Amino acid sequence: MTTKLKLNCDLGESFGSWTMGLDDAVMPHIDMANIACGFHAGDPDVMFNTLLLAKKYNTVIGAHPSYPDLQGFGRRSLNCSKQEITNMVVYQVSALIGMASTLGLTVDYVKPHGALYNDMMKDSAIQDAICCAIKLLNQSGHSLKLMMLATKDNAKHADTAAQQGVSLLFESFADRRYTDEGTLQPRSEKGSVLDKDEILVQVRQLLNAQVTTATGNQLAVNSDTICVHGDNEAGVSLIADIHKLCNS
Amino acid sequence: MTTKLKLNCDLGESFGSWTMGLDDAVMPHIDMANIACGFHAGDPDVMFNTLLLAKKYNTVIGAHPSYPDLQGFGRRSLNCSKQEITNMVVYQVSALIGMASTLGLTVDYVKPHGALYNDMMKDSAIQDAICCAIKLLNQSGHSLKLMMLATKDNAKHADTAAQQGVSLLFESFADRRYTDEGTLQPRSEKGSVLDKDEILVQVRQLLNAQVTTATGNQLAVNSDTICVHGDNEAGVSLIADIHKLCNS
Amino acid sequence: MTTKLKLNCDLGESFGSWTMGLDDAVMPHIDMANIACGFHAGDPDVMFNTLLLAKKYNTVIGAHPSYPDLQGFGRRSLNCSKQEITNMVVYQVSALIGMASTLGLTVDYVKPHGALYNDMMKDSAIQDAICCAIKLLNQSGHSLKLMMLATKDNAKHADTAAQQGVSLLFESFADRRYTDEGTLQPRSEKGSVLDKDEILVQVRQLLNAQVTTATGNQLAVNSDTICVHGDNEAGVSLIADIHKLCNS
Amino acid sequence: MTTKLKLNCDLGESFGSWTMGLDDAVMPHIDMANIACGFHAGDPDVMFNTLLLAKKYNTVIGAHPSYPDLQGFGRRSLNCSKQEITNMVVYQVSALIGMASTLGLTVDYVKPHGALYNDMMKDSAIQDAICCAIKLLNQSGHSLKLMMLATKDNAKHADTAAQQGVSLLFESFADRRYTDEGTLQPRSEKGSVLDKDEILVQVRQLLNAQVTTATGNQLAVNSDTICVHGDNEAGVSLIADIHKLCNS
Repeated sequence: MTTKLKLNCDLGESFGSWTMGLDDAVMPHIDMANIACGFHAGDPDVMFNTLLLAKKYNTVIGAHPSYPDLQGFGRRSLNCSKQEITNMVVYQVSALIGMASTLGLTVDYVKPHGALYNDMMKDSAIQDAICCAIKLLNQSGHSLKLMMLATKDNAKHADTAAQQGVSLLFESFADRRYTDEGTLQPRSEKGSVLDKDEILVQVRQLLNAQVTTATGNQLAVNSDTICVHGDNEAGVSLIADIHKLCNS
Repeated sequence: MTTKLKLNCDLGESFGSWTMGLDDAVMPHIDMANIACGFHAGDPDVMFNTLLLAKKYNTVIGAHPSYPDLQGFGRRSLNCSKQEITNMVVYQVSALIGMASTLGLTVDYVKPHGALYNDMMKDSAIQDAICCAIKLLNQSGHSLKLMMLATKDNAKHADTAAQQGVSLLFESFADRRYTDEGTLQPRSEKGSVLDKDEILVQVRQLLNAQVTTATGNQLAVNSDTICVHGDNEAGVSLIADIHKLCNS
Repeated sequence: MTTKLKLNCDLGESFGSWTMGLDDAVMPHIDMANIACGFHAGDPDVMFNTLLLAKKYNTVIGAHPSYPDLQGFGRRSLNCSKQEITNMVVYQVSALIGMASTLGLTVDYVKPHGALYNDMMKDSAIQDAICCAIKLLNQSGHSLKLMMLATKDNAKHADTAAQQGVSLLFESFADRRYTDEGTLQPRSEKGSVLDKDEILVQVRQLLNAQVTTATGNQLAVNSDTICVHGDNEAGVSLIADIHKLCNS
Repeated sequence: MTTKLKLNCDLGESFGSWTMGLDDAVMPHIDMANIACGFHAGDPDVMFNTLLLAKKYNTVIGAHPSYPDLQGFGRRSLNCSKQEITNMVVYQVSALIGMASTLGLTVDYVKPHGALYNDMMKDSAIQDAICCAIKLLNQSGHSLKLMMLATKDNAKHADTAAQQGVSLLFESFADRRYTDEGTLQPRSEKGSVLDKDEILVQVRQLLNAQVTTATGNQLAVNSDTICVHGDNEAGVSLIADIHKLCNS
């Protein structure tokens, strides 16, 4: 018996005159849009247009906050205090919430971007700072969840977040090879990024809450959603295929 | 019989490691704090600390959105479409609303900053774009007013804003010489910036809804609040004096 | 008998993770590369890679300085003093000169970008501020020229620049309809952007120093170089065709 | 017999409307000005005015390049490749060289700022990337030295830099307690920042190429220059005192 898995994708990552991603083509095929909030990508106009597109396709909306680093696209870690991380998350998520509200839309979850996401997975203090931001926003009537990487530590992470009253969403990756420890094999290692056929095999496995690891072992991966990428036409076509698989 | 006039002041205009204004010294003496939202000044940490300070002194909070121009401190006009202005105002005001909410605070009004303020006073399309942002935000339960310059066109401005369902607050200036037309005499002209004694005279006049213009005429100026500046110790001391006058 | 016309193109307008333009495909077909300097586009890494590409194809290098406005891509005018314009041009051109020097390359000219270019064409004070920057840099051994729009005022512009000891390069446009006054018909008017066949006709005319205007008149246009655009594959293909025409 | 020690100070760290440091008061008392280049502080106008001030007092000019991080004032480390570090240093130093040249001034050395400085002291690959930038610039006729922290590894650092043909300047600190290992005791530890009297004692020691460490031992510290700070009036007064000591 298979789980239902939603597809989530990073969108709204254009900035000013620069376009990134095929948002128009991707939006119809995904369930959850992680929308950049202006610190690594996105500006108020890009955010507004992305929200309009999400509204058109009834896509669930997530905020995708980042360290402040346009040139580095939020992929470089910045040494910040817990208070600074809470502040930057509250700022960015609030901006998106407000923009969404003008279209009658709500923001359902927060998925930190890039280095902030990686730092959250490695450092419980940063996870705590992000949960604190969400807790504080939820006190004003929002019901934001936090999206994290599905690992064997799901229960531990859920417990920690629950102490702040925050619910989690776990995501898995269709296009990345897992290690026996349940982490993603670094991109620098051969075979860590899957090809199209391998991706479709892995999606079928994820629908059954498991994957075959780099060493051939079976690993339990319990996730709510699969992260997909729509950077080019091949990616969009693959998203459409994965979407069909997840809804068949 | 005199009107009560509140004092409003631009605060939270530090950025990163740079300090501007004596916010700690000013906050106790003012009624309304116009808080920068990150586009001309302010960053999430500065905003948070300024909100904490406003909470301590029970100061009414206004959002102080700007064109995006840190280097120019929002003092340079940028050619933007109405939609772009609405988007940038919604983004900035929402960010402040969200941060304020985490401290149990609400934002009561919007005062555009610098070039955006001047453009609003000169161009009804820009006033309309800003009112549109406020109207859209108010549909989600906020009660934001718009602060504008008190002129002889108060009624016209109020009518225009009312068409969007937006209420206005009018501000006057204690430290600037008015023309017979009810505008501020440009700083470049001699005598346009008043000295301490002249300021206190003008405050007394404003409390009676009038000022003496550059040519010596009496001009009606109906305002709800006086804008004051706390850039240095002399400014803070003067604010304290004006505050006493307005509450005597 | 026809003039030789060089092709110039704006390159190096990517930023961080965002790509703009097909620089690799364009560079072999052009003679002069206008390289962004970090204020509207470009960052040190993009600049370095663009310089490497120019070196590979032996392309003449121009600096493409702008108002500081990444989000607006330098297309929005900013009210600046003459000294501020001189400073921003010296800063950006110097940065490119220094980066080019590390590859054994020199910068041959300056072409202001976007709003700064338009402001220069409209306002002699801004032209003067830019010429001042070039004059000052040339005193240290550079031989930078200034690229401007070819108009019927070429001689007047050349005289003005000569007073600062600055030589001019005049550029014409292959893809824009000219008015009888020798200006470019605004993009907002129908027929102002030419199609491929019209462009090739106009290039042949420009090689003979004339164009047919919107009203069907013949207009003298004396230019040193034609500006082309390589934003997509059709544009690149057209550049290759224009390049052949200009060298046949 | 004492060594002569020059005083160096970080200047030009204002940005746009924000002022930092008492540059006008400090410049007369120092020998070497480390001028910010726009990535952590400084903008073309601030740079120009700081260069003018250096010219007035005949101060030796150093470039003070940084990671790109205005909000963090360059104090947060950014994970960059060697090529990226070389590019950002070449860009910033070239911009200052060009601006200085318009005033007939030359730039004599490079002192990396903040996190880039600290990373350089910890990581030889980063030192190498910075030396590479300087070597490449020196090939165009400049004679830039690199300023580093004076440690017991001076000889090793000098050897490494010499392999790139780069000469070093070593700086010591008057206001910080040294450890027995010759590093600066972290600010977080009690007693690590010296008071005025301790500073003057330490300057006298540095003039004899030694300091008393936190444990009371004598440590050899061979430096060419002492770093001083002019953030406030007390700091400026102390700089004047140190300057007298160093020239008596």
